Amino acid sequence: MRYSQLIGKTKKDIQKDEVGISAQYLIRGGFIHKELAGVYTLLPLGLKVVNKITQIIREEINAIDAQELSMTAIQNPDPWKKSGRWDDNVVDIWFKTLLKNGSEVGLATTHEEPLTKLLSQQVNSYKDLPLYVYQFQTKFRNEPRPRSGLLRAREFIMKDLYSFNTNKESHEEYYERAKQAYIKIWERLGIGKHTYLTFASGGTFSKYSHEFQTLCENGEDTIYVDKKKKIAVNKEVFNDEVLKELNLNKKEMEEEKAIEVGNIFPLGTKYSQALGLMFTDETGGKKPVVMGSYGIGIGRVMATIVELIHDDKGIIWPENVSPCKVHLIGLNLDDEDVNKRAEEVYSRLKGKKIDVLFDDRKEATPGEKFADADLIGITYRAVVSSKTREDIEIKRRDQEKVSLVPLEDFIGNLLK
Amino acid sequence: MRYSQLIGKTKKDIQKDEVGISAQYLIRGGFIHKELAGVYTLLPLGLKVVNKITQIIREEINAIDAQELSMTAIQNPDPWKKSGRWDDNVVDIWFKTLLKNGSEVGLATTHEEPLTKLLSQQVNSYKDLPLYVYQFQTKFRNEPRPRSGLLRAREFIMKDLYSFNTNKESHEEYYERAKQAYIKIWERLGIGKHTYLTFASGGTFSKYSHEFQTLCENGEDTIYVDKKKKIAVNKEVFNDEVLKELNLNKKEMEEEKAIEVGNIFPLGTKYSQALGLMFTDETGGKKPVVMGSYGIGIGRVMATIVELIHDDKGIIWPENVSPCKVHLIGLNLDDEDVNKRAEEVYSRLKGKKIDVLFDDRKEATPGEKFADADLIGITYRAVVSSKTREDIEIKRRDQEKVSLVPLEDFIGNLLK
Repeated sequence: MRYSQLIGKTKKDIQKDEVGISAQYLIRGGFIHKELAGVYTLLPLGLKVVNKITQIIREEINAIDAQELSMTAIQNPDPWKKSGRWDDNVVDIWFKTLLKNGSEVGLATTHEEPLTKLLSQQVNSYKDLPLYVYQFQTKFRNEPRPRSGLLRAREFIMKDLYSFNTNKESHEEYYERAKQAYIKIWERLGIGKHTYLTFASGGTFSKYSHEFQTLCENGEDTIYVDKKKKIAVNKEVFNDEVLKELNLNKKEMEEEKAIEVGNIFPLGTKYSQALGLMFTDETGGKKPVVMGSYGIGIGRVMATIVELIHDDKGIIWPENVSPCKVHLIGLNLDDEDVNKRAEEVYSRLKGKKIDVLFDDRKEATPGEKFADADLIGITYRAVVSSKTREDIEIKRRDQEKVSLVPLEDFIGNLLK
Repeated sequence: MRYSQLIGKTKKDIQKDEVGISAQYLIRGGFIHKELAGVYTLLPLGLKVVNKITQIIREEINAIDAQELSMTAIQNPDPWKKSGRWDDNVVDIWFKTLLKNGSEVGLATTHEEPLTKLLSQQVNSYKDLPLYVYQFQTKFRNEPRPRSGLLRAREFIMKDLYSFNTNKESHEEYYERAKQAYIKIWERLGIGKHTYLTFASGGTFSKYSHEFQTLCENGEDTIYVDKKKKIAVNKEVFNDEVLKELNLNKKEMEEEKAIEVGNIFPLGTKYSQALGLMFTDETGGKKPVVMGSYGIGIGRVMATIVELIHDDKGIIWPENVSPCKVHLIGLNLDDEDVNKRAEEVYSRLKGKKIDVLFDDRKEATPGEKFADADLIGITYRAVVSSKTREDIEIKRRDQEKVSLVPLEDFIGNLLK
C-alpha cells in the first residue's frame, strides 16, 4: 500500500468537534472519517485494524464452540413486542422507520429477540442443546449524546455471542468459559494488563453481570479496583454488602475511570419464556432454555487501545492489531539509486506477504514523513535513504532504539 | 461442523410465501432465514457461501488496484441534497429515520455522494489521481415489492467499487479493466458460461452502461443475446440504431430472461461537479473528476448460482463457493466401531484444515441423510458406514459416479 495513493491522509489540525485522544488520533491518522456525530466511515487503515481485532475475537470465540451467523439490521417488531422491548419508553435508543406499505420496523440495537425466535423453530429436545451463536454485525443506537468518536457511536460493529443451555449449571459452566475467552482476547489485543473483570448489577436472573473495564482517564464509568486480586466493582454495586460477599476490602480498592470494552450477562429464561423457546427434558417435561449474552463493541475496543497506548506524537499500536507490520519510509527519493532501492525493499516485503505501508512521496520532507509514521503508529518503522545503502534503518514505535540491519535479517525476524 | 449442532436445519416443506427455486432451496437447505419480506438472516452455511463469494470478488478487485474501506449505513442528507437524490420523488426507495434531536437521516441505498464528498477533502492535484475505492457494505432499499428471496431484497450486502480519474480516456481504460475483472469473477463463481456482458442505457455522460446478465428462467430482465459473439442487449435499448452501432444482427439475437448480477456505470462528472470534487491539472486549471461505479449484489449472486445450478433434489454448489468441501455422512453409527471410524475421519479432515459438515446424527435414516446432502449441495459427499471399512465412499454432487477410495487418496486429491 503506497501512502501517495492511500485514501485517508494524516491531518495536522486538532479536531475541534471531537473530545478525547482516540477520536483525535484516529481521525488525524486517517483511520476514520466522521459522517456525522457518532457515525464514522472506516478508512483503509481503520478497516485493517478492525479486521485484525475481529479475527482475534473470532478465533477465541470459535474456540469456545460457537457458530457464526449474520442477522439483519431491519427488525420485525413482533418478537420485540413479546419481550416488551419494542416500546420507546423501555428501550429509548431505537431507530424506527417505515416500509412502503406503512408498517413500522426498527434497526437492531441488539439481537436477543430475533435469535430466540429463530431457535424456537429448531430446538425441541434437550438433545438439541447446548447451542452457542455469535456474529459481527452492525448495531444502530439512537444515542442522544454520542461522544468521543468511536467510544459511544450511533452505528457500530458488535461481536455478540448468545448461549443456550438446558439448565443453570451448564449455563454457568459456559459463562465461565466465555469469561476466560474474553480474558485471552484482551491479552491478545494488548490491553490485558489494564482490563479488569468488574462486578456490575445483574438482572432478574442473576445477582451480578460482569463487565470488562479498561482503566482509562477518558472513561465514562467509575469503578473500584483491587489491583492485587485483579478484580473490580462497578460504582453502581459498590457497597458494603457486595464487598463482603466478594470478599473484598474497601481499603484496598482504588477509584478509577474506565471504559467498558465488553460485558457478559446471564439472561436466565427472560427471553426464552417471552418467545416460547422451550425444550423437552429427559423426563418429558417442557422447560424454558437458559440464556446468556456476551458483547464486545469492535470500534470501542479500537478506540480504547488508542486511549490507553499512545504518546504525544500519536498512536502506538500493539503488534497484533497494527494496521501493517511495517511503515517503510523512503528518503532522498529524487536520487534514482535510492528510489530504486526503496522500491526493491517494498517489493521484497510484499513478496514475503508482509503488510507494508510505503511512504513513497517525493514532495514530503523527512520530518513530515517521520511525524506521520509516529502519528499512524505502525509497529516497525523502516527507513531507506542515501545513508542506509544495503541495510535498512529500523525502529519500533514502542522503543527509542534505532538500528541499521541487513534487509534479510529484518525480514527473517518479522517472519519468525 | 457437526450437523447435530448446526443452526439452520433442513426443512421438507415447500415455503408457500416464497417464489423461485433459489428462495425455496436456500431456506429449505438452512442457508437463510426470513425475518420479513426481503430481509434474511444468513445462517452459518449461508454465511460460509457469502464469505467465499466475497473473498473471490475481493481478490479480483484488489488485483485492479482498488482500496477497501467501509462506509456507514446512516447518511447525512447534505451531500444527497446537493446531488438531488435526497428527494423521495427522485429516489423512491429511501428508508429515512430521525435522530433524537429531530434531524432526518437516511439509510444508504448506494454511496456515490458520501464518497465523493470524502475524496473532495483529499484530492487537490492531478497527482492525487487516479483513485479506486471499494467496500462490502450493507445497503438498504425500501422496495415496495421485494421478491424471490435474495433476488430483490430490502437489506443486502453489496460490493461497490468507485473509480476517480482525471479524464475520460483514463476512466475508459479503468472501466475496461473492471469489465475484465468482472468476467474473471463470474468464471470463478461458476456462472461464467451463462453470464453475458449486456449493453444497457447509459446516462448523461455515456451512451451505454453495462450490465452482466445471467440467463435464467426466473430472471426479471429481458435481454437479447448473440451467443456466438457472447454479447447481449437489454430490451430497453434493443432497437435498430443500437444494433447497427454494435454491429449486431437482429436475426442472430435470441430473447432470454436473465438476472442482473452486476453492473458497471460511467458516472462522468455528475457527482464530482455537484459535490465539488475538483483537481488542478498540469496547466493549473480546475477540472471535475471523472467517475465510474461498479456494483455486485452478493446475496443476489448467491441466489443466481442456485437458480442456475440445481436439480430436483437440491443445490449443486460450484466447488469454489461450496459452503464446505466435504459433507461427511456417518451411517450405522450405533455400531461403536463405525462411529469411532467416522469420528476419526472427521478429525483427520479437520486436522488437514478441510472444511467438513459432519452428519453425526444417530436418529436420522440413511435416506434422510442422503436427501439432506443433496439439498445442501456440498461438492463432495463422503460416507463412512459398516460397509466402507478402511475406505470411504465418495460421490461428487455434480456427478453420478460413486467410488470407494482410501481416505488418504481422497485427502490428497482435495489438497491438490
